[in-house]
Amino acid sequence: MDGLVTAVIQDYTSGRVLMVGFMNEEAFRKTVETGFATFFSRSRNKLWLKGESSGHRLVVKEISTDCDRDALLIRVEALGPGVCHEGYLSCFARRLENGEWVIREARAYDPETVYRSKQ
Amino acid sequence: MDGLVTAVIQDYTSGRVLMVGFMNEEAFRKTVETGFATFFSRSRNKLWLKGESSGHRLVVKEISTDCDRDALLIRVEALGPGVCHEGYLSCFARRLENGEWVIREARAYDPETVYRSKQ
Repeated sequence: MDGLVTAVIQDYTSGRVLMVGFMNEEAFRKTVETGFATFFSRSRNKLWLKGESSGHRLVVKEISTDCDRDALLIRVEALGPGVCHEGYLSCFARRLENGEWVIREARAYDPETVYRSKQ
Repeated sequence: MDGLVTAVIQDYTSGRVLMVGFMNEEAFRKTVETGFATFFSRSRNKLWLKGESSGHRLVVKEISTDCDRDALLIRVEALGPGVCHEGYLSCFARRLENGEWVIREARAYDPETVYRSKQ
């Protein structure tokens, strides 16, 4: 995938999977060096420190890789109320129920308030 | 990614992330219809029912998608002792410790025995 690996972000305490991002070598190095998860944004084509706008940074607790070495599992302490830019605790808020994607949880924060003056 | 989405496989009971695969639309449909996780193999360019060789199938318990709709989180009951073709419970057996990837857990099964007559 053009030098990108999949990075699965999991809450260290609850075990909940929070999001999936992509890292290139530089993003991975930044993540290890700074202790904050840093991704490569495919849409913006640049490095992206998670939480640089919202303050909701991801503090790295443990990094694992898989047998193919094309995916990372990063267990984190998530700063702030939620990881998803839509206001949810996890980006995986939509569950499949009888063929439809349904959200069964409340927003953890109001994204309008958090992002309004920052983007 | 050429119509593929990332599929994160998580153990429903323990919360451990077991592997990451890819699904196209057909693999996703098969997964939903059969209740067994089915991936698209990029190397073999075809559908791949996880466990078709080893018997270690993944029974789907819950499917979620993320806000970008380009990743799936599939919580499963994993049949058999381990998911990784190298014999480990999880494909994410390698942890980063002081700049090196280290395996700190024992194999859950012997892949030679499981795969010998089947591949």
